[in-house]
Amino acid sequence: MNEDSYLLPLYNRLNVSFVKGKKSVLYDEKGKDYIDFTSGIGVNSLGYCNKELVKTMEKQANKILHTSNVYHIESQEKCAKKIVELSTYDMKCFFCNSGAEANESAIKLARKYGNTAFSTPKYKIITIQNSFHGRTIATLKATAQEDKHKYFGPYPDGFIYAKDITEAINLIDDSTVAVMLELIQGEGGIYMQDVNKVKELERTLKNKKLLLIVDEVQTGVYRSGNFLMSQYFAIKPDIITLAKGLASGIPIGVMMTSLKDVLTAGDHGSTFGGNHFSTTVCNKVLDILEEYLNSGKLESNINYFNKYLDHLVDSYPKIFLQRNGWGFMKGLVLKDENKLSEIINNALENGVLVLKSGKNIIRFLPPLTISKKEIKEGFNRFEKTIQQS
Amino acid sequence: MNEDSYLLPLYNRLNVSFVKGKKSVLYDEKGKDYIDFTSGIGVNSLGYCNKELVKTMEKQANKILHTSNVYHIESQEKCAKKIVELSTYDMKCFFCNSGAEANESAIKLARKYGNTAFSTPKYKIITIQNSFHGRTIATLKATAQEDKHKYFGPYPDGFIYAKDITEAINLIDDSTVAVMLELIQGEGGIYMQDVNKVKELERTLKNKKLLLIVDEVQTGVYRSGNFLMSQYFAIKPDIITLAKGLASGIPIGVMMTSLKDVLTAGDHGSTFGGNHFSTTVCNKVLDILEEYLNSGKLESNINYFNKYLDHLVDSYPKIFLQRNGWGFMKGLVLKDENKLSEIINNALENGVLVLKSGKNIIRFLPPLTISKKEIKEGFNRFEKTIQQS
Ligand SMILES: Cc1ncc(COP(=O)(O)O)c(C=O)c1O
Ligand SMILES: Cc1ncc(COP(=O)(O)O)c(C=O)c1O
Repeated sequence: MNEDSYLLPLYNRLNVSFVKGKKSVLYDEKGKDYIDFTSGIGVNSLGYCNKELVKTMEKQANKILHTSNVYHIESQEKCAKKIVELSTYDMKCFFCNSGAEANESAIKLARKYGNTAFSTPKYKIITIQNSFHGRTIATLKATAQEDKHKYFGPYPDGFIYAKDITEAINLIDDSTVAVMLELIQGEGGIYMQDVNKVKELERTLKNKKLLLIVDEVQTGVYRSGNFLMSQYFAIKPDIITLAKGLASGIPIGVMMTSLKDVLTAGDHGSTFGGNHFSTTVCNKVLDILEEYLNSGKLESNINYFNKYLDHLVDSYPKIFLQRNGWGFMKGLVLKDENKLSEIINNALENGVLVLKSGKNIIRFLPPLTISKKEIKEGFNRFEKTIQQS
Repeated sequence: MNEDSYLLPLYNRLNVSFVKGKKSVLYDEKGKDYIDFTSGIGVNSLGYCNKELVKTMEKQANKILHTSNVYHIESQEKCAKKIVELSTYDMKCFFCNSGAEANESAIKLARKYGNTAFSTPKYKIITIQNSFHGRTIATLKATAQEDKHKYFGPYPDGFIYAKDITEAINLIDDSTVAVMLELIQGEGGIYMQDVNKVKELERTLKNKKLLLIVDEVQTGVYRSGNFLMSQYFAIKPDIITLAKGLASGIPIGVMMTSLKDVLTAGDHGSTFGGNHFSTTVCNKVLDILEEYLNSGKLESNINYFNKYLDHLVDSYPKIFLQRNGWGFMKGLVLKDENKLSEIINNALENGVLVLKSGKNIIRFLPPLTISKKEIKEGFNRFEKTIQQS
């Protein structure tokens, strides 16, 4: 798109550039406003320029951004405690800088467990068709989309793909150490797993002392209407990974686990991970979101959002098949996948931002704090877009 | 150390917790001050609370932190241009969030090049003994320290270890695509490669159309006294990776390359990578450091620092063998490796922070903007520590 760009051409970027945001509205250079139903792909949980968060950032910028993990970092300790308490699980945390790094950490932990806890080593990790776990070599191989693997081998052995959870259960063998999955596939079509299947998987794994790894990089941090999607499913994963929404725009990732003693000093680490700035921002984001959940507004606004989605499915049966997803992670399934890009581009033109997922899904990941007024205006603009299609 | 911690026990942390910093001085909860010769392991290039940087952060926090790479991001474009121009190489950039992610990106690029540019695919990457390239599965395997690989296999094939550059040249075979190295090994003992050897390696690789990957995660961003260590070596790498010092404490990484068309849309990506906040901060850091270099202060202060190191080596021949390194990436080699932890702990006690590297090196990575006064005070405290040993 940009001939003179100094960036490698790794993204198909839409031709718009935002200069500021306010609540759930973005503004481009010309001052045109856009209702944001994307939140930077699930990152900006508090929208833009949340006053309390800005204050926290200003305050912390005037104290300290970063020291090494060679030293004790109080905000990192607090952040781990907060995350564990919100999760309700008996776990400990490791901090890194992205979803891919969180999943690398999960894979390393599972591998060490598999290689040390059994008389014959176990190393295979089963993942589910159309999953997405990241862009590093190992997380890309864990991503069960073989068309994405073409150029970057050799890959690490031991990632096994199941078409669904039932097949995952059947594929478990003597060298399997874990099953890793998203409870709602984010990139793979806002596809939600069946609760009972997941519980059956959980039981099977527990019986064999194998691990359930839940990638909540996209579903986590209140995206589902609860702190974790795992809490809705009423399951107890052994490892959970988080990133995206944790610090509303500052890079951070977490791997949390009930296996508190498997990894020891020197086994893993990160230069930036868990530093003063990212964890202080994360603490504030989590405080605000906890209060927001307790106020009832999150649930109320998710319900309000759902009504618009239902209205669209009901009113435009030639265009939409159904709505998918849960909480503020939603999809509208298109009948005709060829319309996907056109609708996204036209929505942009009309001042509302939406994403794609899979081949034929319009994905909605609004800021968690989006207001009813913004939701209404966003759907007005989106419906206008649909009427033009 | 902390019984009630919610953090996995992955670091051997020293028992100190910093609450604020000013220039190159850190303060703990009790108000005690520490001269910082570590800069968060090469991260805090501007020290703490640089006024201009704080202002930039405040301003940006009031505009926008993050949008997806689905959209154009002006500060990311600017940052790529700035980095390329400072490097003097004809390259393009990809943004990620850490040194490990930058090296993952480099490995993926080299692999795609090797798998597509030749009639028989090439995939082997040769790395150098005692290197350190990161903690993800692939970068850990690229790290030629086999004692670190114990638990986390199976690893990707194709990483070959050479004991030095001469052996690396000899190990190049028909399936080799790249050699990856640090010009000064940061974790591996502040060991600087020989310029002529590196040039010979460069020529050999160029003749065979193979790639030279230089990991400048620790040496880069003015740490050497120049923007890149590669510039001192007067070499032209095909791929360079940067992270640590780029944004003085905000997580960010870059992979830059002269291979502008090998990776295409969909081959790679990152959710947070290159976002408004991290790249705006990075732009400011680079502006300040460029000016600082041009003022002559960086070189003058590196020379001043060297005098103290030389004084220590000269005055305490029973303790130190020599000084290593370049620019503001320095090591003092201990005769007795058993003294390493003791000296670091006592230095902390005396109010000066230093790091270790390898088995017997005291590592110095001060903020790049450290003043002569701070250097003097830091070495007073350090010399006192040595006199106690
Ligand atoms: C479920 C899931 N896992 C992992 C990732 C990778 O996260 P990141 O881009 O921060 O590395 C993503 C990103 O979209 C994701 O949706
Ligand atoms: C030369 C080098 N490469 C890569 C890394 C990994 O960087 P990060 O910890 O940001 O992943 C480091 C970290 O110390 C390093 O020194």
